[in-house]
Amino acid sequence: MIVIMKIGYTQEELERVIARIEEAGLRTHLSVGESTTIIGVVGVPIPPELQSDLEVVDGVDSVLRVTKRYKLPSREFHPEPTKFKVRDVTIGGDEVVVIAGPCSVESAEQTLSTARAARAAGASILRGGAFKPRTSPYEFRGLGEEGLKILAEARAETGMPIITEVLTPYDLDLVSRYTDILQIGARNCQNFLLLEEAGKSGVPVMLKRGMSVQIEEWLSAAEYIMAQGNPNVLLCERGIRTFETATRNTFDLNAIPVIKRLSHLPIFADPSHGTGKWYLVPAMSLAAIAAGADGLMIEVHPNPDHAKSDGGQSLTIENFNKLMPQVRAVAGAVGRSVAAEAVPV
Amino acid sequence: MIVIMKIGYTQEELERVIARIEEAGLRTHLSVGESTTIIGVVGVPIPPELQSDLEVVDGVDSVLRVTKRYKLPSREFHPEPTKFKVRDVTIGGDEVVVIAGPCSVESAEQTLSTARAARAAGASILRGGAFKPRTSPYEFRGLGEEGLKILAEARAETGMPIITEVLTPYDLDLVSRYTDILQIGARNCQNFLLLEEAGKSGVPVMLKRGMSVQIEEWLSAAEYIMAQGNPNVLLCERGIRTFETATRNTFDLNAIPVIKRLSHLPIFADPSHGTGKWYLVPAMSLAAIAAGADGLMIEVHPNPDHAKSDGGQSLTIENFNKLMPQVRAVAGAVGRSVAAEAVPV
Amino acid sequence: MIVIMKIGYTQEELERVIARIEEAGLRTHLSVGESTTIIGVVGVPIPPELQSDLEVVDGVDSVLRVTKRYKLPSREFHPEPTKFKVRDVTIGGDEVVVIAGPCSVESAEQTLSTARAARAAGASILRGGAFKPRTSPYEFRGLGEEGLKILAEARAETGMPIITEVLTPYDLDLVSRYTDILQIGARNCQNFLLLEEAGKSGVPVMLKRGMSVQIEEWLSAAEYIMAQGNPNVLLCERGIRTFETATRNTFDLNAIPVIKRLSHLPIFADPSHGTGKWYLVPAMSLAAIAAGADGLMIEVHPNPDHAKSDGGQSLTIENFNKLMPQVRAVAGAVGRSVAAEAVPV
Amino acid sequence: MIVIMKIGYTQEELERVIARIEEAGLRTHLSVGESTTIIGVVGVPIPPELQSDLEVVDGVDSVLRVTKRYKLPSREFHPEPTKFKVRDVTIGGDEVVVIAGPCSVESAEQTLSTARAARAAGASILRGGAFKPRTSPYEFRGLGEEGLKILAEARAETGMPIITEVLTPYDLDLVSRYTDILQIGARNCQNFLLLEEAGKSGVPVMLKRGMSVQIEEWLSAAEYIMAQGNPNVLLCERGIRTFETATRNTFDLNAIPVIKRLSHLPIFADPSHGTGKWYLVPAMSLAAIAAGADGLMIEVHPNPDHAKSDGGQSLTIENFNKLMPQVRAVAGAVGRSVAAEAVPV
Repeated sequence: MIVIMKIGYTQEELERVIARIEEAGLRTHLSVGESTTIIGVVGVPIPPELQSDLEVVDGVDSVLRVTKRYKLPSREFHPEPTKFKVRDVTIGGDEVVVIAGPCSVESAEQTLSTARAARAAGASILRGGAFKPRTSPYEFRGLGEEGLKILAEARAETGMPIITEVLTPYDLDLVSRYTDILQIGARNCQNFLLLEEAGKSGVPVMLKRGMSVQIEEWLSAAEYIMAQGNPNVLLCERGIRTFETATRNTFDLNAIPVIKRLSHLPIFADPSHGTGKWYLVPAMSLAAIAAGADGLMIEVHPNPDHAKSDGGQSLTIENFNKLMPQVRAVAGAVGRSVAAEAVPV
Repeated sequence: MIVIMKIGYTQEELERVIARIEEAGLRTHLSVGESTTIIGVVGVPIPPELQSDLEVVDGVDSVLRVTKRYKLPSREFHPEPTKFKVRDVTIGGDEVVVIAGPCSVESAEQTLSTARAARAAGASILRGGAFKPRTSPYEFRGLGEEGLKILAEARAETGMPIITEVLTPYDLDLVSRYTDILQIGARNCQNFLLLEEAGKSGVPVMLKRGMSVQIEEWLSAAEYIMAQGNPNVLLCERGIRTFETATRNTFDLNAIPVIKRLSHLPIFADPSHGTGKWYLVPAMSLAAIAAGADGLMIEVHPNPDHAKSDGGQSLTIENFNKLMPQVRAVAGAVGRSVAAEAVPV
Repeated sequence: MIVIMKIGYTQEELERVIARIEEAGLRTHLSVGESTTIIGVVGVPIPPELQSDLEVVDGVDSVLRVTKRYKLPSREFHPEPTKFKVRDVTIGGDEVVVIAGPCSVESAEQTLSTARAARAAGASILRGGAFKPRTSPYEFRGLGEEGLKILAEARAETGMPIITEVLTPYDLDLVSRYTDILQIGARNCQNFLLLEEAGKSGVPVMLKRGMSVQIEEWLSAAEYIMAQGNPNVLLCERGIRTFETATRNTFDLNAIPVIKRLSHLPIFADPSHGTGKWYLVPAMSLAAIAAGADGLMIEVHPNPDHAKSDGGQSLTIENFNKLMPQVRAVAGAVGRSVAAEAVPV
Repeated sequence: MIVIMKIGYTQEELERVIARIEEAGLRTHLSVGESTTIIGVVGVPIPPELQSDLEVVDGVDSVLRVTKRYKLPSREFHPEPTKFKVRDVTIGGDEVVVIAGPCSVESAEQTLSTARAARAAGASILRGGAFKPRTSPYEFRGLGEEGLKILAEARAETGMPIITEVLTPYDLDLVSRYTDILQIGARNCQNFLLLEEAGKSGVPVMLKRGMSVQIEEWLSAAEYIMAQGNPNVLLCERGIRTFETATRNTFDLNAIPVIKRLSHLPIFADPSHGTGKWYLVPAMSLAAIAAGADGLMIEVHPNPDHAKSDGGQSLTIENFNKLMPQVRAVAGAVGRSVAAEAVPV
């Protein structure tokens, strides 16, 4: 931590800042420059509240952190990339993993037909929402446990592991009994109790980025899960809020190489939520793979014009079939392959 | 709802759009202009998923909603401003209500001394966090029930109602036994289960705006609470995420007159979180009152340089004492007064 | 400037960083902490490109500036607030100055009738655009010199100084012959040649904040003008771009106390562009004054429903008449007064 | 255009809205629904100011445009993609075009050595700034005409066409005498006079997206150039301003497929400015090609740690050499190739 003194500070103010730092059991390192005086804070641990506390001391201009807020997800702490298996699918390895399926589980038929088609085209994991967060209380909120059972049935038939969202700590036990990966959605990215409970469950967790969450905060959120002893975390970029309205969100692919540099955790991309427009999904899926994503999560629906949620961002099965060979080609161009072959179930 | 057809659409595409709308039990109203063809969707209720579903139909350029997503919080539904009492304090009336207190309850002494000073200066309600959401798992997370007891003690001594944050549905019963107002924080603004449970509790709820939540979405979040039969909701603006880094958030005072126009709910402002800088709190408190806020929520701490959280945005008691007469003056200038007199406890 | 070394840097990398700094004629101050090694850069002047150059040196994690980028507009350089006279109106003094008038000068009658009404209600300065920047080339672009003549006529009749926008260096001489204050609009906030030419003109300059310009960059833009020997700069907040769509821009009143702290320059607020909605202008005008603004710039039009530009954000004369006594009341509440009396011309 | 009436409007208000529309020579199409009344505006041309004017009429809730603001850049107006030649390089064709070179022209040696290396690796066009826009007046502003001469020398030697930025209408004639493509930078994206003058010059123009410019506004800016009879416009995405600070800007690759859908103009991507970090440039270059970009603009410098501007976002020649074969591979994967072979000059 670095304290920058105001121009024109007094000696007494300087001494009080140093005393406050020493009171916290730390040492100081003073650097008096031509135009600026800086106090380096030396020692560990630095109490997290110290930065904010020092901001109110007279004579202080500003206080900067120079160490990262998160530890367990950092590359420095764990240089090798994290890999883990979900049934027989490896997440974070050389092979790109495609997750596909409907936004919501609406019926057995809708889910099974999508699952078969997704599997045939080369998806490795099936997605589908049984508990849905909705902006308005009058929208479809999912089938609940009935939806989980349908997902399990689709897994039994196709062999694909499943991922589904958990909305609250209440549902964790129930959802964990069915799912292979717990999905924590954008709105819950900083729901810290849910993160800790998901950490305790031991089930692999996909942590989606919140709509206004900086990358450093996202990694700090992952720390909540990992601090409970659960190392199997995978991150998923899904778009941030900006002034642009041509897309529903601004799908921030820059996050992919940034995460690769800062963290050892696998990073996926969700172009369906990222853009909110079905016609942008193919181009942005390819871009995500080229940027280095370890996988994709794509919404596919047999009849998007009759979907109970997010039809406008779902691919038809036909469009998903067209996309997968392109995904293979781009993965190949960056030295990777797609985990699953395209073989009819 | 309005469907705008692509330039060059075919008659067959148009017919399929109309059929999809009629299938939902609605009628259409066609308007063929020189450059654009528009289909108005007539009838109620319009299924919430229809907008997204129509976006994937061939020939459709875009689909616009023309009705609001929320109903219970709207001015049109309830033209008169909502007023309610919290013990003997009226929220949403002509008088401006000042809520003050520490970010976190740290000890009985810290809380009681702040409460006494706040009361003496003219605050009506005491704030203090017992359960704290923190970006990193290594930061201070509050005293829990011990903190709630301290708040209750401060209420008993000063007579001030109390407000404290509830983080999860698990804690709702516990927190409701102590608090007069449940605070739902920015990170939980779209935690829909928590909203519904808070609605069921019957306790008045302060709903803070999420960091990337549009005003329309904020009112839809309020609908979750109100749809459970709880009309006593007060909104609180606390800053949004933008590119500006001179302030911690961009405290969006425009939300105050916008909410007044769209909704009958009382609207408060929290300049402490809104700006994140103690030295901006006085000016922005006055601005909020001038903009029409029904109240303020201000962080006050006896020793901000030793606070366990958010010291950098807390006023000292001395600065709070200086601010309150200015708040009174500005409230007077806009035809209001401050609910509580400045009288020593 | 502070260089933060990567964890695990080598001694050789450290030496190369130090060598690069010394090559620029500067000294270094090394601080080796438990977890982080930091190099302070000591000496002046630090070449502006050094920060970016050091970011590419092996072993460097990041480089932080600790001194401000701007000098002439800073409080530290010039502690007393800047005041200057425009004809007999003092900008930056104790009195709040109200600038009012139409978005565009459309005709002599429209401008003169607005000017008379604005003067009568207590505005001190008349605004009106003769050269208009427009998003589409097919929109009204102003009357040009004819518009300037109409403004001069209005000044002759009412005695009010005038302010009008200059769009390009080409028009500077022409506009300067007529106007009392040159307005540089949001889109030109970082049009550096225009800033320098405005600086050379010697005419007082209002510099509006760009839609995505951070406060530090805004002050750096002011430096371009001041570095040409023109100290008479006044800043004007007019809204930034964010995700919120209920307002046309997010009018950032936080900028007012931030500028007061960082700079000695006067700061105005333009609630008409800031919000883009006529019905938000009154509340946000009062809020701006309460936040400490030195003045307001408000769009007023005799017939907003027939305006050639920005009718939707213009007050009618009637609404402006209602607003001015409220502005006086709030100004009084914060210890200021409005420069001009409300007296019929 | 669509006018949405307020709930509870009066018949008289409705009639006044209709009268205002008819006064503009247009017809109306009334749709009275269960919950909402909508007036469609029929006829052409709709005066651009009408939307804003109607917003102030009593009884109006809001006014929505349903036609696009721009015409010449739209796909609907010109369905085939625009292609044009710059010397012997085709822009907008099947082949991906790579523009490379230093941020600023600093010396003949620096520019020539970069040009040779760029050419050898397979770049088709040389970039280099002779006139530089800088946030602070104390930064390096370019060599001016001397820089243009160096670029021309590099073109003579390597055969590569050149692109360089024009900052003001004053410099247009001078810059046009040397350059093959005029670059209009992000800060000038809405400098409408410069756009028109560039349009008149007849020289091909690269229009970079402004930091807070929506895609629709960007296309409207292109209209300014094209309306002067210059069809040879190429767009370049270079990052927008958001709350994320891990990158200098948020490089918005979504703009690439959005532009492809809305417009026939070629679209390039500049990952150097887009991300501001040299280590993110390779991944985001590949992502841009996968997203469908027609070309890249990449900053390359022989000694980025001694660059006079933007060293931190420049690739070394070695890193550029490593990147180009990857660009070829990804271009191949999406059915394209890179315009120039990698052959030593």
